Amino acid sequence: MTTSLNPKYFNITYPQEHVAHVEINRADKMNSFFEAMWLELHTIFNHLSHSPAVRAIVLSGAGPKAFTAGLDVKAASQGLLSSDDDSQTDPARKAFHLRRHITSFQDCISAIERCEKPVIVAMHGFSLGLAVDIATAADVRLCAADTKFAVKEVDIGLAADIGTLSRLPKVVGNFGWVKEVALSARVFGAEEAQRVGFVSQVFGSKEEVVKGALEIAGLIASKSPVAVFGTKDILNWSRDRSVEDGLRYTSVWNSAALQTKDVSAALLSGIQKRKPTFEKL
Amino acid sequence: MTTSLNPKYFNITYPQEHVAHVEINRADKMNSFFEAMWLELHTIFNHLSHSPAVRAIVLSGAGPKAFTAGLDVKAASQGLLSSDDDSQTDPARKAFHLRRHITSFQDCISAIERCEKPVIVAMHGFSLGLAVDIATAADVRLCAADTKFAVKEVDIGLAADIGTLSRLPKVVGNFGWVKEVALSARVFGAEEAQRVGFVSQVFGSKEEVVKGALEIAGLIASKSPVAVFGTKDILNWSRDRSVEDGLRYTSVWNSAALQTKDVSAALLSGIQKRKPTFEKL
Amino acid sequence: MTTSLNPKYFNITYPQEHVAHVEINRADKMNSFFEAMWLELHTIFNHLSHSPAVRAIVLSGAGPKAFTAGLDVKAASQGLLSSDDDSQTDPARKAFHLRRHITSFQDCISAIERCEKPVIVAMHGFSLGLAVDIATAADVRLCAADTKFAVKEVDIGLAADIGTLSRLPKVVGNFGWVKEVALSARVFGAEEAQRVGFVSQVFGSKEEVVKGALEIAGLIASKSPVAVFGTKDILNWSRDRSVEDGLRYTSVWNSAALQTKDVSAALLSGIQKRKPTFEKL
Amino acid sequence: MTTSLNPKYFNITYPQEHVAHVEINRADKMNSFFEAMWLELHTIFNHLSHSPAVRAIVLSGAGPKAFTAGLDVKAASQGLLSSDDDSQTDPARKAFHLRRHITSFQDCISAIERCEKPVIVAMHGFSLGLAVDIATAADVRLCAADTKFAVKEVDIGLAADIGTLSRLPKVVGNFGWVKEVALSARVFGAEEAQRVGFVSQVFGSKEEVVKGALEIAGLIASKSPVAVFGTKDILNWSRDRSVEDGLRYTSVWNSAALQTKDVSAALLSGIQKRKPTFEKL
Amino acid sequence: MTTSLNPKYFNITYPQEHVAHVEINRADKMNSFFEAMWLELHTIFNHLSHSPAVRAIVLSGAGPKAFTAGLDVKAASQGLLSSDDDSQTDPARKAFHLRRHITSFQDCISAIERCEKPVIVAMHGFSLGLAVDIATAADVRLCAADTKFAVKEVDIGLAADIGTLSRLPKVVGNFGWVKEVALSARVFGAEEAQRVGFVSQVFGSKEEVVKGALEIAGLIASKSPVAVFGTKDILNWSRDRSVEDGLRYTSVWNSAALQTKDVSAALLSGIQKRKPTFEKL
Amino acid sequence: MTTSLNPKYFNITYPQEHVAHVEINRADKMNSFFEAMWLELHTIFNHLSHSPAVRAIVLSGAGPKAFTAGLDVKAASQGLLSSDDDSQTDPARKAFHLRRHITSFQDCISAIERCEKPVIVAMHGFSLGLAVDIATAADVRLCAADTKFAVKEVDIGLAADIGTLSRLPKVVGNFGWVKEVALSARVFGAEEAQRVGFVSQVFGSKEEVVKGALEIAGLIASKSPVAVFGTKDILNWSRDRSVEDGLRYTSVWNSAALQTKDVSAALLSGIQKRKPTFEKL
Repeated sequence: MTTSLNPKYFNITYPQEHVAHVEINRADKMNSFFEAMWLELHTIFNHLSHSPAVRAIVLSGAGPKAFTAGLDVKAASQGLLSSDDDSQTDPARKAFHLRRHITSFQDCISAIERCEKPVIVAMHGFSLGLAVDIATAADVRLCAADTKFAVKEVDIGLAADIGTLSRLPKVVGNFGWVKEVALSARVFGAEEAQRVGFVSQVFGSKEEVVKGALEIAGLIASKSPVAVFGTKDILNWSRDRSVEDGLRYTSVWNSAALQTKDVSAALLSGIQKRKPTFEKL
Repeated sequence: MTTSLNPKYFNITYPQEHVAHVEINRADKMNSFFEAMWLELHTIFNHLSHSPAVRAIVLSGAGPKAFTAGLDVKAASQGLLSSDDDSQTDPARKAFHLRRHITSFQDCISAIERCEKPVIVAMHGFSLGLAVDIATAADVRLCAADTKFAVKEVDIGLAADIGTLSRLPKVVGNFGWVKEVALSARVFGAEEAQRVGFVSQVFGSKEEVVKGALEIAGLIASKSPVAVFGTKDILNWSRDRSVEDGLRYTSVWNSAALQTKDVSAALLSGIQKRKPTFEKL
Repeated sequence: MTTSLNPKYFNITYPQEHVAHVEINRADKMNSFFEAMWLELHTIFNHLSHSPAVRAIVLSGAGPKAFTAGLDVKAASQGLLSSDDDSQTDPARKAFHLRRHITSFQDCISAIERCEKPVIVAMHGFSLGLAVDIATAADVRLCAADTKFAVKEVDIGLAADIGTLSRLPKVVGNFGWVKEVALSARVFGAEEAQRVGFVSQVFGSKEEVVKGALEIAGLIASKSPVAVFGTKDILNWSRDRSVEDGLRYTSVWNSAALQTKDVSAALLSGIQKRKPTFEKL
Repeated sequence: MTTSLNPKYFNITYPQEHVAHVEINRADKMNSFFEAMWLELHTIFNHLSHSPAVRAIVLSGAGPKAFTAGLDVKAASQGLLSSDDDSQTDPARKAFHLRRHITSFQDCISAIERCEKPVIVAMHGFSLGLAVDIATAADVRLCAADTKFAVKEVDIGLAADIGTLSRLPKVVGNFGWVKEVALSARVFGAEEAQRVGFVSQVFGSKEEVVKGALEIAGLIASKSPVAVFGTKDILNWSRDRSVEDGLRYTSVWNSAALQTKDVSAALLSGIQKRKPTFEKL
Repeated sequence: MTTSLNPKYFNITYPQEHVAHVEINRADKMNSFFEAMWLELHTIFNHLSHSPAVRAIVLSGAGPKAFTAGLDVKAASQGLLSSDDDSQTDPARKAFHLRRHITSFQDCISAIERCEKPVIVAMHGFSLGLAVDIATAADVRLCAADTKFAVKEVDIGLAADIGTLSRLPKVVGNFGWVKEVALSARVFGAEEAQRVGFVSQVFGSKEEVVKGALEIAGLIASKSPVAVFGTKDILNWSRDRSVEDGLRYTSVWNSAALQTKDVSAALLSGIQKRKPTFEKL
Repeated sequence: MTTSLNPKYFNITYPQEHVAHVEINRADKMNSFFEAMWLELHTIFNHLSHSPAVRAIVLSGAGPKAFTAGLDVKAASQGLLSSDDDSQTDPARKAFHLRRHITSFQDCISAIERCEKPVIVAMHGFSLGLAVDIATAADVRLCAADTKFAVKEVDIGLAADIGTLSRLPKVVGNFGWVKEVALSARVFGAEEAQRVGFVSQVFGSKEEVVKGALEIAGLIASKSPVAVFGTKDILNWSRDRSVEDGLRYTSVWNSAALQTKDVSAALLSGIQKRKPTFEKL
């Protein structure tokens, strides 16, 4: 697999069985993103989604300073601002091009949500703007005590459009807080993030949060992949629909999934007090 | 009413006016469930839903050890595993039969949600798997300090399909935590359950949580049943729909409900500083 | 603007640039509401929504005792009860009239949610019934330590129909708590409100909470209005719809909004370390 | 099967392999319905839904005069009107009881829609009121040339509440016509019904429409039941949801259904130019 | 009522009991619309919606040439084009103002759909652009043989935004035809309009279509207003939602509406073979 | 553009300004599809969607016999059946792989619906199975008199899963007919297709239908591309959502689109009685 994927801006390692570790690897620029990077992110998560050997994924940022400081504003503003002074001055046509661009960018980040395997994001240091878009598309959010978060977009004159505004109200059950941080762009820390439920756990340092994430990933990877991938898919579906539509989708999903041999494998190993092994998927 | 309902696996008592107490009564097996039990649960809650004398319901588990340890895996696996080796080997046909079975099982637990009367669930000890399906279908969740919760299903190789995955994201506003406990099947305790909002209150012991539940039930039962049942129904409707659809449904509902004599009864007794009495419903 | 708006039951002041402060001004009656007041509230928020000079709004209640004690039951019951004994005794016709009345009342309070400018509500003292309807329609909820909240409606024999039941499950991520306070009508205080996420912050006194609200309003008002109003609109849209519909709406919205000069203004002032100025909107 | 079902107001026959024929059997009263009849209808369709030998169902009315003249108004009005003069005079409580009653009645008719097997309804003569509720819940609508249809409810002072108003706009693509016939209660004939798409085909006589319905039922019954029941379920789901939700549900459904042996059976018999046989389901 | 409403661009008459006839009255300009007109339309339909004496409404255009030729492009383009050359050149700010303008315009036309009383639109001659927006918001569409329809907007460089694109796919069950006429802006005649179901009936002349519309209005106005207004409301609700949500809303609606005395009035007059009289609503 | 796209199974020509003609080019196999073909279809429509020179697209099939006879069952069954006898016998794992496969296949066909430019499909001869999936994803459907349609899937033991079941109920307003043809797999001809609204027009021969499609495409291509692409997008959005959500999305869309210079270009050329020219998009 490493041969087929040769990422330039990310490190991919396999620190334990069935677990992939994806690291944003542009530490000298605070792991800030430009277009080639989110396209690569897209490729990586699409690939891991179907990799039979991978059952859980950790996503973190290289270097001591930042998970990611967000959009590389200099690179982005070149794109955005330069397109300003070209001959294209019809606002409707420009809107079409911007919409295509936003849609494509959104789609890259949504690859994390669509990925069949659970994604645990381990954040530290600056985790601004795009960091929150990425984090809300992941399944479990963890952070180091030094993490500095901000829904930064209003500070550069725009509404966050890569996912934060659509997902944050659904991952944090405190809509007033969501409004407040999104409208003010103020920085908030690890403790506040945990209190409102944006992150599940806070760790002492970057090393510890990555270690913690790998442990959760390892735990999840030890379970039946049929059960795990179904659980992720059904939870994401149900979050956005009525309980009735959730129940019906679940019944159709499990009508196939319950036929897995993993159920008897799990039951048997439960009786025999040993760790079950599951076929690759 | 007790004559018409002769439950075998549940105790039903009426400890105070307008309050029913339903107790899962299979303490020797940790109150674990098999099919006859959820069918009976269905019958009980359908019955209480229309019982004029009942205005609030407490649900708890008999014995000191468990609210319920979930599915009686031995009983269930006999069903599931035995159907494996019968002549029925077409996976599509098997899927049809499984879907019917899941739908019917879901429908039994949903009787708690559909029940017109508010249901307060008082949990203690082992509260695993199906316990969480049942608890999320109830209105208010309370527990004793010793309660051990787990969304246990991935441990037996399947995605929880009786309601937990559809309802848990809607009752707890911390989607990362929901994902984490559902994907890892790890045990969590009373304090964690309260911190994330899965339970509203933690009590010292099983006795105290049942007492606390009966008190809340008693308080609710002292209110206008027209107001209480409308509040439950509208809240469940609104949870799953847009604010606009919520407001419109509410206006139609209350166009009948506001014609109740309970409003003047309540207003009058408010002025006269006495407890109002409301007609049965 | 003050000339065009001459509210009778509200004070409107402009304590700082781009910030309006709306105060419910019927302190001698605990700021309780009757019909003329919610009609006036509607007019005020529709007006401020389009006022170019206003970028954030604080809503509070005059006097030391109450944000608002809710519906002026005496006034309301005269309406409600008197309509009881008129010649109109067909329950269906009465239902039509009640539905029109409820819809119109809902629409007045929804003006706060529809208002393009963020609304920070600063509560103190009695904040009962309608207070919660109003607060859930606002964007950010703050309160003083002495605030006494209650979803009071079941106590007067009715299901809250002006917005609480439709919005509370969406602003607070603890559905069991929502059910419990709505079904029991019990009073809860500032600390509990903060713990469950109903309010974001608790302040020592009424003066402090109003000051705190004005500070948040001032901070928001210093940002690009294009970014701020877009953020409010997209968050409200996304709360009620699937992530996919949220992302698509966002891409269409920003296809126009990203063409604002505020982006380059914000980026430039960021580089130049000075406060940006944004055109009125 | 015939032994377990002993319907009183319906005839059930099995005129050809895998086809059930349900006949409303109260010809002396124009097949008009009272409560015991729709409860029986419910039982019958739930039963046939799971009968392995049944793959398609025809529903028609006994006697020369009517498919059904609708509600037996005399019987219904006794219920309705008598409940008027009982001691129960609180309109809100009465509304609760009416809602329970309507919900239960709706649920009986919806059994036709929920039935896994396709239902072809063959109408003739008077097909009024409830006839339209029943017909819209079926899959295919056929009629004789003499059929007289009406959405009759406004003529007895009420809005049709057993399904017509919810389903007619979804089965007929002419919303103006739907409005017109529902608002005016006017009678329309077979030709008009076909022109607007309410019925698919018109036959010369009652005998011919029943024969035509049995032929379509026979054709459907000769196909793979896995394919047929999936097609019905997915079409009903998709009608009510976005194309995206339709596609996703379909992919989950077929992930099990495509594993059927019916595919190779069908392909093989196609090559061998013979009629395939499919296992019971 | 005529005293309180003094429309300038519309005639309102009451040609028969319970029927209002609204006529667009700017025949010298082909009844084309400018802003003051749609604001007046809004006022008129809001007023008629609550007028107790009115039970059905006919909408037609004065003069022999046109129902309405649509937007008065000259007037509109002055607005649109003039706002082009003002100092406001930030496309995002301009987008905000345009959105407010579109929303307000949409809301005026939606008053026809929201109006509690059924609206029958009688079209003749040129019925272009806004004519289709208006017609799709009405309940029943009729036309004269000479009517010339077009979804004209693409011909002036814009997507129809006042309702045609949102409603036409829901009132006509031929999505390919909807796409074709909306994308090509081609003219279509009365016969084609009837064939695809856009209009229900075609009449020989303007006089005849108005007469025909008044007859349908008269028929509807002779029914129970409780039944008629409920039928309109439930049909509009159900069109946009799942069958399940339609059924539930209907059950809540009718829990009040079935308590009307109109049911016994209708039943009694049915037995006595005389025309029922219903109380005003 | 022709250089960048080198399709193997399709011809792409540009018969007139702004119009692309895509032809399925496997006439010797009745234009039946295998996987490489739908992947190529995906690439082509994604490409044309963003090609500035293309404003409308015609899709037809090469050769005299068929638009497409559907899936190349031989090729497909090799895939499907061969995967049967591999070592992978866990039905749940197989379901995962099938779901990925179906999703990817659906996504290829949905490229036609997502394509910004209107797609007119011109069908003739055999148009079976996948032909209907493709046709329902297009905007306008035309056919020759000799066309033979069938929703063929139940005949090979499966429910159509590439779009027909999700889209057919939304493009044809006759749900009974949709059910009947999907459940029976019977062949229907051009005339029936037109009568129910599945195709808009029937032409004498293949040559004529292609010519007719090119004419409609030419007409659409002569309009403002800003108006045309907006119309397609808003119609597809609105079809699947409530009128309210349709109106709001439209207002946001047009807040950018109305700023186009195409409006003044169109108005001016209207006044000057000449054909407008629009900038590429």
